[in-house]
Amino acid sequence: MSEVYAARRTRLRERCHAGGSAAALVTRPANVRYLAGASPHGAVLLLAKHEDLLLCQSPPDDRPYEGRPDETLRVQVLPHPPGGDPAVAAADLAQSQGADSLAVEEHHLTVARHRALASVATRLRLADLGSAVEQLRVVKDEEEISNLRIGAEIADQALGELLESILVGRTERHLALELERRLVDHGADGPAFPTSVATGPNAGRRGHRPTDRRVEEGDFLSVCLGAAYRGYRCEIGRTFVIGTSPADWQIQLYDLVFAAQRAGREALTPGATCRDVDRAARQVLDSAGFAERLQPLTGHGVGLEIDEDPQLAPSAMGKLDACVPVTVEPGVHLPGRGGVRIDDTLVVRPEADGGPELLTITTKELLAL
Amino acid sequence: MSEVYAARRTRLRERCHAGGSAAALVTRPANVRYLAGASPHGAVLLLAKHEDLLLCQSPPDDRPYEGRPDETLRVQVLPHPPGGDPAVAAADLAQSQGADSLAVEEHHLTVARHRALASVATRLRLADLGSAVEQLRVVKDEEEISNLRIGAEIADQALGELLESILVGRTERHLALELERRLVDHGADGPAFPTSVATGPNAGRRGHRPTDRRVEEGDFLSVCLGAAYRGYRCEIGRTFVIGTSPADWQIQLYDLVFAAQRAGREALTPGATCRDVDRAARQVLDSAGFAERLQPLTGHGVGLEIDEDPQLAPSAMGKLDACVPVTVEPGVHLPGRGGVRIDDTLVVRPEADGGPELLTITTKELLAL
Repeated sequence: MSEVYAARRTRLRERCHAGGSAAALVTRPANVRYLAGASPHGAVLLLAKHEDLLLCQSPPDDRPYEGRPDETLRVQVLPHPPGGDPAVAAADLAQSQGADSLAVEEHHLTVARHRALASVATRLRLADLGSAVEQLRVVKDEEEISNLRIGAEIADQALGELLESILVGRTERHLALELERRLVDHGADGPAFPTSVATGPNAGRRGHRPTDRRVEEGDFLSVCLGAAYRGYRCEIGRTFVIGTSPADWQIQLYDLVFAAQRAGREALTPGATCRDVDRAARQVLDSAGFAERLQPLTGHGVGLEIDEDPQLAPSAMGKLDACVPVTVEPGVHLPGRGGVRIDDTLVVRPEADGGPELLTITTKELLAL
Repeated sequence: MSEVYAARRTRLRERCHAGGSAAALVTRPANVRYLAGASPHGAVLLLAKHEDLLLCQSPPDDRPYEGRPDETLRVQVLPHPPGGDPAVAAADLAQSQGADSLAVEEHHLTVARHRALASVATRLRLADLGSAVEQLRVVKDEEEISNLRIGAEIADQALGELLESILVGRTERHLALELERRLVDHGADGPAFPTSVATGPNAGRRGHRPTDRRVEEGDFLSVCLGAAYRGYRCEIGRTFVIGTSPADWQIQLYDLVFAAQRAGREALTPGATCRDVDRAARQVLDSAGFAERLQPLTGHGVGLEIDEDPQLAPSAMGKLDACVPVTVEPGVHLPGRGGVRIDDTLVVRPEADGGPELLTITTKELLAL
C-alpha cells in the first residue's frame, strides 16, 4: 500500500509545483488520511522540499481501526499543548528548510489558525492549495472501490436482518440503534453517518434524525444507513410499507420515485455531466408535479467522507469519470403524510464493462412488511 | 425559556459594543444553539442593529430533538445553494442595514469563508468576536445544570445495567454499542461522545476507540461514556477488574488513581485556579513516579459540547467560578499492561452549599466483576 500513498503525494506535489508552491500543508483529516494512510487526531501532512512528514500530537497507532500511516512516511509526534498546533510546527519547519511559499487548505484552516501560521512563518508566502486533494480523491482505485463494496455488503446484510424482525411498535431510535449494532456485527468500523429511520409522516425526509415515534400499521418506513469500512463510507436507502397492503397513493408515489431513481442510475456513464444525471432523475418527479418539494441534489460522491464531490445537482459543474462512486437518491416527502426515498451507491463504469456497478443490492421492490 | 436566550444575546451585544462592533455574526453551532435555542444545520445568528436574526438553510424544525429556536427570534430560511452560505447572506444584510463593522468568529470561520464574507460586505469592517460566546457559556444556569444532572443519571443507569451482565468474552465494540443503546433507552438524545470501552492492555487509555478485543479474566476494564440530554453533555469514566480477585499491582494502581481523582475533586472550589486543581490531582501521580505517562489535562468543562472551557491543565489560565461543571479524570496507562481512569462530572459550588456537586454517582470502589 505504501506505493499508493507515495504516488498520491507525488501527484499532489506536481500540482503544487505547477501552482508555484514548493511546499504544501494538508490539514483536512480526510485529505491527510488519503495521502498518508491515517489521520491520527490533529495530524497534518507537510509535503516539503526534501521529504514528506506527518506531524501529530498523539502516537499514530492510537486508534487501531482508523488505519496506520504509510510506513515510508516520517512521523513526528509533538508534545501536547502548549507544545502547540502541528500545523504551526509544520509551517515553521517548512520555513527553516528554506521554502519560500507554502500552499495551505484555506477552505479548512480557520482565520485564527491561518494567522498563527503566518505569525510564525514570517518569511513564507502562504498560498491556497484549494481543493486539490479533494479533486484527486474523486476517481477511486480498485482498492478503494473494494472497500466501498464490502461496506455496501455489510449495509445490505444489516438491512436484510432488520426486515426479518417485527417492526410494528418499535421506535425510530431503536431501529436505528439496532441497525448500527448490526453494521458493527458484520465487520463495519462503525456507521458511515448517523443512521436515519423515519416512519409515517417522517418517512422520505432526507437526513431525518430518529425520534421516539413508533412504527404503525399503514406507515411508510424509510431507512438510510451505511457502513464505514477501512475508512470508506457507502450509503443505502430504502422505503417500505408496514402492513399487508399498501394504499394506492403509496404505490403511486413509490413507483414514481423508483422511476426517477432508475432514470438517474441509467444516466451514470463516463462523460455524462453531473447536471444531466441530476436532471434525468429530477424531471421524472418534476413532470408529476413534485418540483417544489424536491431536495437540492439527487446524489453525491462517496469515499473517505460520506458527502464528497461530485454533486449531482442542477447547478453542478463537471462530468463523471469512470471509477467515481456516487449515490442516486431522489425522494419525495409530502408534509403530514410521509414519503419515499430510494438511495443506492453505484460506481460509474463504461458500458463495455457492463455500465454502472450497483454496490447496494437490496431489492427495490415495494415490500410490505 | 425565551427570556433566557434573549438575555444571553443582550450580554453578548454589550460585549460587542464594548469591543467597538455594532453587529456580530455567530457561526459556531454550539454558540448558535446557546444564543438561539437551536442550531439547525448550517444556521448562523446575526445580532444586528435593530434585531436578532437566525439564518438557516433548512426549516428550523427539521431535527425534532435538537431543540427549537427561541420563538421571539426572527428566523429566515434561505434557499439551498446556489442560494448560498447563510453567513454571507447575514453579512450582506448587516451591511444593508448600515452597520459599519461586524464581529465574526475567526476561530470558527475558515479563511475561504471569511474571504467570501469580505467580498460581499465591502463596506463592512470585519472584526474578531473571539471566544466571547464560549466565555459566556462557562458559567451555567440552573436549567443547564439540571440538563447535565439528568444526563448524568442516564449515564449512571446505563453503566449500572452493564455491570449486571456477563462481560467475559464480549468485545469492546459490542459493549460500547450496548451502552449507547441503553443511554437512548433511558431517554438520552444520544451518546455525548463516542463511548470508549477498553480492556486489558487498552484499559486506561484516554479516548480509546473500541476494538474487537474480548474481555478476559484478570483484565482491567475501563469505560467512559456520557449522555446528551437536551443538548447538554456529561461524562463518566470507571475502571473495573474482571474476575474474582484483583492482582496486587491492580489494587495499587487503582488506589493511586483514586487518590489523585479525589484530590482533584476536593480542590474544586469557587476561586480556585484551574492549574491548582490540575496540580492537586497530578502531584499524587507525579509523586508515585507516573509524571511522564500523564495526559496533558486532568479535566475540562462540559456543557453543549463535551470539551469546553475551562481546561484543568498545568498551563491553564483563570479561576473556577461557582456553577461551572467540569470533569475530573486523571488516569494512568502502563504500555502493555493497561491502566486505570476514573472520571466524574461535578459542578463547582461554594462550601456553604455543600461544596462540589457530584453528578455522576456510580460507585468508585474497585469492583471485581
